[in-house]
Amino acid sequence: MKINCKKEILLNNINIVLKSVASRTTIPILECILLKADKDGFKLISNDLEVGIETINIESDIIEKGIVALEAKIFYDIIRNMPEGNITIEVKENNKTIIKNGKTEFKILGQNGNEFPTLNEIKREEKYSINSNILKNMIKQTKFSVSNDESKPILTGELIEIKEGYLNIVAIDGFRVSFRCTKVNKDFKNAEVVVPAKTLNEIIKILPDKENSIVNLYFNENNILFELENCIVVSRLLDGEFLKYEQIFTEDYNTKIKLNRVDLLSSLERASLISKDNKKTPVKLEITNNDNLIITSNTEFGTSYEEVFIELEGESLNIAFNPKYLIDALKVIEDDEITIQFMTSLSPCIIKGIDNNEYKYLILPLKINE
Amino acid sequence: MKINCKKEILLNNINIVLKSVASRTTIPILECILLKADKDGFKLISNDLEVGIETINIESDIIEKGIVALEAKIFYDIIRNMPEGNITIEVKENNKTIIKNGKTEFKILGQNGNEFPTLNEIKREEKYSINSNILKNMIKQTKFSVSNDESKPILTGELIEIKEGYLNIVAIDGFRVSFRCTKVNKDFKNAEVVVPAKTLNEIIKILPDKENSIVNLYFNENNILFELENCIVVSRLLDGEFLKYEQIFTEDYNTKIKLNRVDLLSSLERASLISKDNKKTPVKLEITNNDNLIITSNTEFGTSYEEVFIELEGESLNIAFNPKYLIDALKVIEDDEITIQFMTSLSPCIIKGIDNNEYKYLILPLKINE
Repeated sequence: MKINCKKEILLNNINIVLKSVASRTTIPILECILLKADKDGFKLISNDLEVGIETINIESDIIEKGIVALEAKIFYDIIRNMPEGNITIEVKENNKTIIKNGKTEFKILGQNGNEFPTLNEIKREEKYSINSNILKNMIKQTKFSVSNDESKPILTGELIEIKEGYLNIVAIDGFRVSFRCTKVNKDFKNAEVVVPAKTLNEIIKILPDKENSIVNLYFNENNILFELENCIVVSRLLDGEFLKYEQIFTEDYNTKIKLNRVDLLSSLERASLISKDNKKTPVKLEITNNDNLIITSNTEFGTSYEEVFIELEGESLNIAFNPKYLIDALKVIEDDEITIQFMTSLSPCIIKGIDNNEYKYLILPLKINE
Repeated sequence: MKINCKKEILLNNINIVLKSVASRTTIPILECILLKADKDGFKLISNDLEVGIETINIESDIIEKGIVALEAKIFYDIIRNMPEGNITIEVKENNKTIIKNGKTEFKILGQNGNEFPTLNEIKREEKYSINSNILKNMIKQTKFSVSNDESKPILTGELIEIKEGYLNIVAIDGFRVSFRCTKVNKDFKNAEVVVPAKTLNEIIKILPDKENSIVNLYFNENNILFELENCIVVSRLLDGEFLKYEQIFTEDYNTKIKLNRVDLLSSLERASLISKDNKKTPVKLEITNNDNLIITSNTEFGTSYEEVFIELEGESLNIAFNPKYLIDALKVIEDDEITIQFMTSLSPCIIKGIDNNEYKYLILPLKINE
């Protein structure tokens, strides 16, 4: 293999595939990036066996076709530190690889590229297109409520559901539910997959920031393929049935409050300061009849007291929460004003933005110890 | 005690004293910040028994004089998260402390401020004044060659020496020597102290970025006092005799090269990439008669080769170095062009800027294994 490629282009593409290079693996070749120059052009591939990434059409001159796997960290460090300009990469016998630009030359030992595991194949039949900024936002607004509990593997991923012209993303960790939907083409076939949170965490780093950029999704039984402008990402799916979430988002309530999102967020962040296990000590919310929400916390370090202005509809109520669970949602809601609906002090509450009905969040209260 | 103070002012002053709050100590009160309101005004004090910091003249209203020690992290977190505006801090019986602004109120338990250790006293007689930006720069240009070897405690500090109208700062770790001097008032009395590197690391964070700001230094046998505009810092000194460094900076050489600092720096950084113990594998320098410096490295990962243009005076030479030791100095020298003087491949070399003769750096070579 011998190719010429501009440093900047090479570096951008390495940065993409780095996201799925394995670390701490027993299979050393997974710590490599595969360089492949063939009739389809020059590309970089990485694969940690959960997620694989393949770049598309790297602008370069292919002088000789070929394939080699280079240890990712060293390859990245070398390219990042090379002088600006055109870099030549040449593979000699036994995968000896020369990386050269002007008066700078590296010789490193590569591995046999043919031993690198290929990405899982997915037939690109049913295509689901979505604006990549919207998808990125949907993931950010939900991913924090994915479960870390490996004993319920299906909850360590997010549900991506296409249903009646909507794409819905849902994450449930047993204490709260994040839901975000967006309108898509109404002709899209209904579908339902559960994607590992790890994959989605990498995807949001790769999705372009450009407005109007489109990402295409394809599924088969075991895998999902994200087709971006400059790369494809293939991930395994989680196996099993996701929780039924629809019926828990009830519209009924006994108490409904409307308030400023940032006021509530700041008050909760302060109330959670005086605990050692930051943000895990319960905060108490006292919804009073005179349009006042009183937030208090009480730990071995001291007490905090806050008042927030609200508009109340229905009954007054005392309820307690893990403040982190409220804070997580308040940080990702885009509306300035929100509503929170309560049934009783022991049943979940539901948080929504005033104007935007694409996001909703459900959270279980804590028992109040008086 | 009861005071009113603007959030922003309070926060700025907390940020200063935080630098010498103890962490992981067996004396819990050292994890506190002392708040003291007396006839001299309101001030914050911290003291980890190595370094102590006391703020000067915090703008505030003192409603009632008094003293209390508050756990630094919680105090900082609370103030940082308080709403903007005037904050009231009031100490009640048993050091119960109320921190309040508008509808936000915290009650935390403080400790008896009278048990907080006072800063070491230094009589402010002989005063050494220096521009604070220059002092900051002098420390940055030398501190990386302070020794970490606790078996030679005197080398874990930097020599600050006032001598014949110059202030010199010197750091020696057994492999290299950093020296930086600056002209000061020629009437200053000669003096010589060794300041712990930890103190200097904190001092450069506190020294203001303003041009023309002055810092005054005072010494006694055991302590140094830095008098800044908004605080004083008192540190213990290291006990013992510093190494004699003057005679090792010889002017003699057999080989002298002049070259571009950034070219050499980039080449060395690349040459040090292909080693696992980043930057510790030797790099070889081959100074040739045709104005060329060839830099090579060779590890289990591969080889690197670089050419850098030089102007040679004297003999050609082969020599090897720990690249980190060269890189550290090349990063802090301000000149674009530098000279390096060599005697033999086994004796130290000396690096200087072309225009600026206030900085010099000596480094021992490594043995070349051919």
